[in-house]
Amino acid sequence: MGNINSVVITTGTHGNEFTGIYLGKKFEQFPNLIQHPSFDTRVLLSNPKAFAAVRRYIDKDLNRCFATTDLQNPQLTSYEDILAKNIYYLLGEESKNQQQVIIDLHSSTANMQLTIILKNQHPFLLQLAAELSEINPDVRICYSQPTRDSNYLCSISELGFAIEVGPVAQGVLNAELFQKTEVLIYQALDYIESYNQGLNQQRNSSLTLYQYTGVIDYPRNEAGEIQGMIHPQLQFRDYQPLNPGEPIFLTFDERAIAYQGTSTVYPIFINEAAYYEKGIAMCLTEKKILQI
Amino acid sequence: MGNINSVVITTGTHGNEFTGIYLGKKFEQFPNLIQHPSFDTRVLLSNPKAFAAVRRYIDKDLNRCFATTDLQNPQLTSYEDILAKNIYYLLGEESKNQQQVIIDLHSSTANMQLTIILKNQHPFLLQLAAELSEINPDVRICYSQPTRDSNYLCSISELGFAIEVGPVAQGVLNAELFQKTEVLIYQALDYIESYNQGLNQQRNSSLTLYQYTGVIDYPRNEAGEIQGMIHPQLQFRDYQPLNPGEPIFLTFDERAIAYQGTSTVYPIFINEAAYYEKGIAMCLTEKKILQI
Repeated sequence: MGNINSVVITTGTHGNEFTGIYLGKKFEQFPNLIQHPSFDTRVLLSNPKAFAAVRRYIDKDLNRCFATTDLQNPQLTSYEDILAKNIYYLLGEESKNQQQVIIDLHSSTANMQLTIILKNQHPFLLQLAAELSEINPDVRICYSQPTRDSNYLCSISELGFAIEVGPVAQGVLNAELFQKTEVLIYQALDYIESYNQGLNQQRNSSLTLYQYTGVIDYPRNEAGEIQGMIHPQLQFRDYQPLNPGEPIFLTFDERAIAYQGTSTVYPIFINEAAYYEKGIAMCLTEKKILQI
Repeated sequence: MGNINSVVITTGTHGNEFTGIYLGKKFEQFPNLIQHPSFDTRVLLSNPKAFAAVRRYIDKDLNRCFATTDLQNPQLTSYEDILAKNIYYLLGEESKNQQQVIIDLHSSTANMQLTIILKNQHPFLLQLAAELSEINPDVRICYSQPTRDSNYLCSISELGFAIEVGPVAQGVLNAELFQKTEVLIYQALDYIESYNQGLNQQRNSSLTLYQYTGVIDYPRNEAGEIQGMIHPQLQFRDYQPLNPGEPIFLTFDERAIAYQGTSTVYPIFINEAAYYEKGIAMCLTEKKILQI
């Protein structure tokens, strides 16, 4: 693989996730913070209208609008469908014709710490993930194979990934998390610079990867209304082992509901605000050690 | 003062504050939980359309629509203006003609614990507040004189107050906070029952009251964009003393901004998501001990 030519930091793909948005504004005000000798870096605020409205999206979730068939479908004309086509027009060709890294910044109400979400296992991304895991104790690496085509913004580039930080409420800046995210971005850019300079030693290392296996919805009644909450013992325990029989929900009439699986899993995105409407109370992962 | 005839628990005055909304749904499903021999209790979901949209409001903040002049103004026809007039029609006459307690349930992204917000200092409310402070260690009492008429929903009744619980993200249920809020409501209803039964001994007691004195906005540029965040040392430290010279903000270019006041204050609503648009980074209070 040749050198990385450019990095695009996309922010506000969800308009109420302030950490990335204001970090992007900082980088635009002080561009030297993200400049490196061997590649260009720029910032793109993905969904300005949703940011102005302090909402995740206007019509539909922008970060589910990037399936190739959807991008090519002229019948899809919602605000976010149009936006996705514009962003693809801006970045798609570039990402095909050069080595372009896309870093898409997100935040979560779940205790995601500094999660790097990979949508593919490109060797460069695995090496980057291994390096960041090694130097930054808050980093967690998830691998989530897109379920329908590659419908996430960061999937525009083979070298794209998302960063998901939390816990932080929507529409709020948490200074500590802002600073940690900032440091992580500098570490990622430094890694890319070293790679371009040929300074990264290809060494055998191991990488802890949390691989998506499925989701669990809230208990609901026939009308679809939720009938319980994340159990207090599980709240904020993202990335901790969850064993069969341990409680995951507490119903409004105070019954504990236990995890019914047959093996230990590692739940993430526990109690993510934006996932209530998606029917997701948590995502389940398997913990794997990868030799790379 | 005569007996309390009825209690109205209003929920979802802000549609994305789930704690009160789902607690109200629980009470509607299990009405015996809130029934008492000497008074009626009912639940009113104030803003169903905002709840369905998981937003604070559709057109404007419902909880600022109850000024008498606004309720009487036929020119005000936004969704929430109409809603406020309807709610006033439902509760206003009742509250004048009988002893009606209105408990308006809210949640906050700030560390408000279990805050009771009083809009007046009616002796009954002060006695109730003193009792709840004494039996529940998470309870804090705020007094905030409405700035323009009585423009809050709970102000429909002289015996109205708001409960503000946090920290919890918008659009999220936190089971621990849900349970604590539930207990607090039972304690309030029990107090009312005892009052009606003549069992509450009028004893001299002291009440710690946090009285609003003003607000502080975020540092902003000329375009009105925020230029900093709540300082990490202040985040989640609601109700803790803040002394002159102590940091309150951290700007994006990493300068700490100190509190410039001349005396110790007790900030609350620190980093409340819904207040960014109102120009409020925190509310300041004075701590007072009231002999009642």
